[in-house]
Amino acid sequence: MAELVGNLLVAQSGGPTCAINASVAGVITEAGKHECIEEIYGGLNGILGILNEELIDLNDEKASTIKGLLYTPAAALGTCRYKIDFKKKPEKAAQDMDRLFEVFAAHNIRYFFYAGGNDSQDTSHKIHEEALKRGYEMRVIGVPKTIDNDLPFTDSCPGYGSVIKYCATTVMEVGIDVGSMATDDGSCCIIEVMGRSAGWIAAGTVLAKRGNPANPPHIILLPEIRYDVDDFLARVKETVEAYKYCVVVVGEGIRNKDGEEIGADKTRLDAFGHPVLAGAAEKLKEFVQGKLNTKTRTVLLGYAQRAAAHMASLTDINNAYACGEAAVRAAVEGTSGYMVKIVRNVQEGNLTWSTGLQPLSEVANVEHFVPREWISPDGFLPNEHFVEYAKPLVEGEVRPPMENGLPKYVVLDKNRVEKKLAPRA
Amino acid sequence: MAELVGNLLVAQSGGPTCAINASVAGVITEAGKHECIEEIYGGLNGILGILNEELIDLNDEKASTIKGLLYTPAAALGTCRYKIDFKKKPEKAAQDMDRLFEVFAAHNIRYFFYAGGNDSQDTSHKIHEEALKRGYEMRVIGVPKTIDNDLPFTDSCPGYGSVIKYCATTVMEVGIDVGSMATDDGSCCIIEVMGRSAGWIAAGTVLAKRGNPANPPHIILLPEIRYDVDDFLARVKETVEAYKYCVVVVGEGIRNKDGEEIGADKTRLDAFGHPVLAGAAEKLKEFVQGKLNTKTRTVLLGYAQRAAAHMASLTDINNAYACGEAAVRAAVEGTSGYMVKIVRNVQEGNLTWSTGLQPLSEVANVEHFVPREWISPDGFLPNEHFVEYAKPLVEGEVRPPMENGLPKYVVLDKNRVEKKLAPRA
Repeated sequence: MAELVGNLLVAQSGGPTCAINASVAGVITEAGKHECIEEIYGGLNGILGILNEELIDLNDEKASTIKGLLYTPAAALGTCRYKIDFKKKPEKAAQDMDRLFEVFAAHNIRYFFYAGGNDSQDTSHKIHEEALKRGYEMRVIGVPKTIDNDLPFTDSCPGYGSVIKYCATTVMEVGIDVGSMATDDGSCCIIEVMGRSAGWIAAGTVLAKRGNPANPPHIILLPEIRYDVDDFLARVKETVEAYKYCVVVVGEGIRNKDGEEIGADKTRLDAFGHPVLAGAAEKLKEFVQGKLNTKTRTVLLGYAQRAAAHMASLTDINNAYACGEAAVRAAVEGTSGYMVKIVRNVQEGNLTWSTGLQPLSEVANVEHFVPREWISPDGFLPNEHFVEYAKPLVEGEVRPPMENGLPKYVVLDKNRVEKKLAPRA
Repeated sequence: MAELVGNLLVAQSGGPTCAINASVAGVITEAGKHECIEEIYGGLNGILGILNEELIDLNDEKASTIKGLLYTPAAALGTCRYKIDFKKKPEKAAQDMDRLFEVFAAHNIRYFFYAGGNDSQDTSHKIHEEALKRGYEMRVIGVPKTIDNDLPFTDSCPGYGSVIKYCATTVMEVGIDVGSMATDDGSCCIIEVMGRSAGWIAAGTVLAKRGNPANPPHIILLPEIRYDVDDFLARVKETVEAYKYCVVVVGEGIRNKDGEEIGADKTRLDAFGHPVLAGAAEKLKEFVQGKLNTKTRTVLLGYAQRAAAHMASLTDINNAYACGEAAVRAAVEGTSGYMVKIVRNVQEGNLTWSTGLQPLSEVANVEHFVPREWISPDGFLPNEHFVEYAKPLVEGEVRPPMENGLPKYVVLDKNRVEKKLAPRA
């Protein structure tokens, strides 16, 4: 493959994680080692910023800032949920694609890296195909990122190890708290975590048990399983009888036996006539308090879980960084149209991590769920196969530097690259 | 004062914190230095366990476990919300008091330490008075503890520095996350923290701003202030216009202009006919989405905030430990009927901490609120006086030891002291 000389563009997309900046740091650092890569640009707010020609010069950032990206949560370049939708809006999508390639050409972008989840890999795939079609020489590599851990082929997704490290820690701490208030009446605490269709995050909190059935969480509800509410209540009752308290973790998208989302209660309207999305935990609390008369409190971690860089997993951050490096190496070697994947190698009981490549055509829009055989027959807890999978992902600590008792995260200077095109129509 | 020889009993009460075990460690360690103190007992689940003669031998615990109490959250001895209520249930209260003194006498308890908030200080006060009345020689000292920070006379309450360190960190992290997704439409995130009548916890998250008005949190709502919902919405709108996003922190007990709790929506019934307590954040979300049409997400930290020992403040833990030590020293020196208080000393700009004593009669059932002069005139943010107060409280880190990527907290062996009485009637 002939050497391709030109500029690099990296951007971030979708919901942020506390590992997505580590991948960008990996891209920047590796890019600095290759002479064929001239300028290193970042696109602000994903595809949206690229369409608006909002590029920044990452070579202008301080070395300490780039290093700080390893422990700084959220998307340092900004992110978006913008989708180039060829199916529903083909005309708009074609216009967007034309504009993207105008921007690429105007800034001689020859290396493009996009860090994101399912939708973003799909976008990367389309851009790769368009480049081929247009005869525009550019190498496109997808960098995986999603706390949801639902990308196929990769062992795990950057962001996932950190989110379950934080969530399992929180469940453990809440469990000790609720357990220490154990009363004769018993009590229940329901913790809602993210995961609309895949239950990887909820499942990951099983690590808080450390193999002891008496330890919280006592019940974990996954979107992959359809639950009978009465069976759930019976299990809560049993648990409270045995331990005086019950800690439940629930993925936000769990469904009842009829396949309906438990948290989406469309029968109830708010003051403005909109359906109230009570949330899965709140809805289950109503059942536990209403039917069992057991005092119940909820915790809704929301955005806190994916931004909790103060409890990030070193394994996760290292893998995220390695994905960024591997993306650049693959592109420089002539590859395009692939996503970097994380590979777990176990030899004689020793676990090591490496990266591989998977065609974007095979990755895009495929969702990866928690396998049924990793969940107990009754569906209420992940089993030892899941634990064996998840345990290495939370290993090792990343400690952000502290200033006046609080973490000190970095912010990019974001020096803008001069625009060369007329504003987007 | 004549030396008083006998056994020591320490117990914990009310909602746990991640500093309350440090106070117990202080009691145990200091007690070991005084020959007049023979056995060191712990009462399980506060007053409730003492009534049931459920005592454990703390001298039987490993030294490493006692040390581990410094970083272990929740109440290691167990806690309760049991109240000896002389006002509403005088007969039951008199019976309880008789039983308590039976237990004290049976086990020759001459030193009693009770760690807790307002109610617990009241209980300590009553026990002290009863001991005098009955001519039972015993020294009673209250140890302050409450994340709510609403005990009077003490500079701050053990547990408070840690809860605001964790909450401010979380608000900072969520703020970076939401800010990195800033879209043209704008978005809002509302984070609910504990505090039913005092807003100390919500106020403490102002530290996440680090003095920069552009930084989150942009609005902090305190139970001390009565808010006009339209004024609140106008402020959210302004903020979203200025920064594209708005992060709001709300204390659970905030009230509207008419003095009604915003989170307690009694007009809405759940499936079982009970009023739904929507929660302050959920209710405000309805307003922001309904009236401003701004996409809004909520975070409900719940028990997670008071149990987050992985983000504890070293200053807080040190002060909690010092309160335990000081309680024992005061008692050995002949004092009874006092609460230990934390004293802040500032000399030539240097801040040091010490402890003092306050009569329980003055402490019991007095609530301490955030002073109006520490809040901005419009009521939407604590001001520089508050920041000056709160900043030193979050200084320093406590890192729990980690095992397989998760914190490793200690559990007491809880070797029971042989019962000497017939079961409680």
